[in-house]
Amino acid sequence: MKFYDCKTAPSPRRLRIFLAEKSIEMPTVEVDLAHGEQLSDAFRKMNPYCTVPVLELDDGSCITECFAICQYLEDTYPEPRLMGRDAKERALVTMWNTRIENTGLGAIAEAFRNKAKGFNGRALTGAVNFEQIPDLVARGRTRAEIFLGELDEQLAGRDYVAGDVFTVADITAVVAVDFAGWIKLPIPGNADSLRRWHEQVSSRPSMLAQESARWKV
Amino acid sequence: MKFYDCKTAPSPRRLRIFLAEKSIEMPTVEVDLAHGEQLSDAFRKMNPYCTVPVLELDDGSCITECFAICQYLEDTYPEPRLMGRDAKERALVTMWNTRIENTGLGAIAEAFRNKAKGFNGRALTGAVNFEQIPDLVARGRTRAEIFLGELDEQLAGRDYVAGDVFTVADITAVVAVDFAGWIKLPIPGNADSLRRWHEQVSSRPSMLAQESARWKV
Repeated sequence: MKFYDCKTAPSPRRLRIFLAEKSIEMPTVEVDLAHGEQLSDAFRKMNPYCTVPVLELDDGSCITECFAICQYLEDTYPEPRLMGRDAKERALVTMWNTRIENTGLGAIAEAFRNKAKGFNGRALTGAVNFEQIPDLVARGRTRAEIFLGELDEQLAGRDYVAGDVFTVADITAVVAVDFAGWIKLPIPGNADSLRRWHEQVSSRPSMLAQESARWKV
Repeated sequence: MKFYDCKTAPSPRRLRIFLAEKSIEMPTVEVDLAHGEQLSDAFRKMNPYCTVPVLELDDGSCITECFAICQYLEDTYPEPRLMGRDAKERALVTMWNTRIENTGLGAIAEAFRNKAKGFNGRALTGAVNFEQIPDLVARGRTRAEIFLGELDEQLAGRDYVAGDVFTVADITAVVAVDFAGWIKLPIPGNADSLRRWHEQVSSRPSMLAQESARWKV
């Protein structure tokens, strides 16, 4: 297997943490997103959607989409379980992971990519260029604020996002909360549960080793 | 178990087809999205994100997000397999399902909800109202056109989206292709593979029984 990574991007950071939690090591290729390597012919052959992370299997097949890659690794390296231990827990982990992707990561990316100069003409990931839409900067920020509030509410009285153990939903959530820093949106002053959880999960060895460099904006 | 449905909406249609493919029957509650029932206090207690479908378990827990619900049902009613038969197939099904949700359903919803009069002030699903952004109508339509082209390409020489058997990725894709009709975007004239696949999967009994009524726009 081979992992196509980019040290500065939030999505592959999710996978770096996941791999560290499972103590999986594999050859890693750094993709130079800042210079558009994901749009090159060679990269498109692996992933026509031009995103990282990509997991290349030994038979040459390529899996993209972070959650799909995690699922493959959970199936092939089951312990420690990071995606739920029974049907109900698996469903709740997937539910929370999806919510955090859509209402957290998606919202922050909306605010960030529609404003940052480096993303002029690249407001969306993918093979086709889309212009920035200024109205999405404020909308994305508002959605991101709502996301942080909802996550704080979910974490009241809970140690982890989707149950009583650490799962991939916590990984996606911590990457989203840190990504919110890119649009200068810190954890709100009154979000005590979110702050407690963030401090606790951020101190895990997998997180300490895998902090993303900040994209220069 | 209980299924909170809405006959006019694309997302719960995915689950109706999934249930029919598995021959699962359960009590169904129709949620009146047209009159905002998803925003009521009673519904928010089940799903604070105010979306359908919702699967209520016998212990009272509620699972939301279509893919998470399908995963629960796949775990509890394994046959016929609709989400992959081994680690690689499972990953590819999840990958395609995610791509179709984001680049297909998400794009079409962007074009539709930012234009339709009935969605004035409700450009996004969820508990909070967001105004329509006119620039997103054209962007969503362009993205939806790209989606149909990419899906056609994927289906060249293939009977199904994510492998050699019918899976949940086909369900999500057929619902997306039909949803594109809501923005008057038919299958392109030159998309022969997409048309062949669409005709074939649309003739399955699960699909015939579960066609969504068109939302009045």
